[in-house]
Amino acid sequence: MDLERIFLQILEQSGITFGLGDDGVVLPCFKNPIYMLDLFTEGVHFKREWFTLEQIGYKALAVNISDAIALCAVPKYALLGLQLPENFSPLEIKELVLGLQKACQEFKIQIVGGDTIVSKSLSLAITLLASSAKPLLRQKMRLGDLLVHTGRLGESDKALQTLLRGGRVAGHSKFYKPVLKNLAPFMQTIRPLLHAGLDISDGLLAECNRLSQLNQLHCKLINPHQRAFLSGEEYEMLLCLPARNKHALIQRAKKHRIKLSFIGRVIRGKSHYKAKIWHKATK
Amino acid sequence: MDLERIFLQILEQSGITFGLGDDGVVLPCFKNPIYMLDLFTEGVHFKREWFTLEQIGYKALAVNISDAIALCAVPKYALLGLQLPENFSPLEIKELVLGLQKACQEFKIQIVGGDTIVSKSLSLAITLLASSAKPLLRQKMRLGDLLVHTGRLGESDKALQTLLRGGRVAGHSKFYKPVLKNLAPFMQTIRPLLHAGLDISDGLLAECNRLSQLNQLHCKLINPHQRAFLSGEEYEMLLCLPARNKHALIQRAKKHRIKLSFIGRVIRGKSHYKAKIWHKATK
Repeated sequence: MDLERIFLQILEQSGITFGLGDDGVVLPCFKNPIYMLDLFTEGVHFKREWFTLEQIGYKALAVNISDAIALCAVPKYALLGLQLPENFSPLEIKELVLGLQKACQEFKIQIVGGDTIVSKSLSLAITLLASSAKPLLRQKMRLGDLLVHTGRLGESDKALQTLLRGGRVAGHSKFYKPVLKNLAPFMQTIRPLLHAGLDISDGLLAECNRLSQLNQLHCKLINPHQRAFLSGEEYEMLLCLPARNKHALIQRAKKHRIKLSFIGRVIRGKSHYKAKIWHKATK
Repeated sequence: MDLERIFLQILEQSGITFGLGDDGVVLPCFKNPIYMLDLFTEGVHFKREWFTLEQIGYKALAVNISDAIALCAVPKYALLGLQLPENFSPLEIKELVLGLQKACQEFKIQIVGGDTIVSKSLSLAITLLASSAKPLLRQKMRLGDLLVHTGRLGESDKALQTLLRGGRVAGHSKFYKPVLKNLAPFMQTIRPLLHAGLDISDGLLAECNRLSQLNQLHCKLINPHQRAFLSGEEYEMLLCLPARNKHALIQRAKKHRIKLSFIGRVIRGKSHYKAKIWHKATK
């Protein structure tokens, strides 16, 4: 049996699929759809020697789910374009599927279609179909907004430096396993308080430049010279909100046990922070 | 400027995008959505020395559009996950985008999102969002159905053999440019006459085996021993319909100038035709 078929069989046995078997899939109707696609590719987003296959499967979905959470959307379905290395064994496929399964079960996502090919290296292209009554976009940042991020930053950078030095990183590090469980309901509940936001995937400074470019305003940080602000793949949220909502945000963050750091304010001008290109780092 | 940004700039200038700039996209509402994802990858689906970049861009979308047409769906939006080789020049990117642009304009598709990375080889993962009031699926084949295919088969195989021998193939060959323009409205008009169908991407015999497996019935061909029946990437349609609709189908095919070949019938049993694995051929 060929690898594509072995993969499909293992995937179907995992219980996370719906409606496979045709070139296209018709889904049960859901309101306010929003669509996103992310690649997770060997040599760019990960090295095989740094990750178990389970970790790769989990993280490939998690980086997409993080996008959905940042948009205040609930992910529902995924399409998976998979390039499998030709020397993969059924056991390796099982490990990869286990990672996909864990992420799908945690976030109640079903894999509803896609394409599988045998290629030279491992790559996952995941399209996520999510639902959001009022998506939180990047382009609604306003003059005077407060800038705040969730969680602690810097862990992914530390993990990456350790790996680059040949060291080992614990499996529970968020470099392997973004911690998104609490963020999802938190983002839903704070949506009315916010103007704009996005997840920190290329480092906080890079995201500030991005918001600045899109909104033609400057994200003025109180203390921009922090190494943690260069750390990508943090999967924490960078949020913009009017100052009058600060108190309400803090209250809800307490309730959801989310750490907040108020780091600056939106003023006139343009941000030109020196950020590093995060994904070149893993090459 | 980095390659990802150059690509995005050229893509936006091409006029075929909508709603880029965020992690996710909210689209204007459309009825009866249907979703599909296809990969088009160097070393698997194409060799760079056989294709111009314009041909690659065009065909990457065309193979997806062919799926949509086979489902009697109208493609509307695409998400593009692009792996760009690191040595690509802006001119090469322009050529690739030109191919995408031609396909998008021909079929009125907008590129609404995606992800771009710089990698070792060229690969396109395309998710197509289409609309179909009554999708034509693979699983509704019935006992006694007639089997018919559109067009002439074998051209892609001939082109491939020529290329493998070091010969040259004309740019208008359907190996480069699937001819889908007339098929799209034809499929819409004949939908009520059909039980099941799919596009011939892995060769007619392979598709018969697939239908047989899914429907637990045998696609009994009158003359299965034809080299053209092994030819993949034909992007013609294999259709199943009750005999009473044969006349109506022929009438509509004439009107749309579509050639039909009635090749067999659905009987009890199982198809085990010896098909070749098409995409191994281009490796």
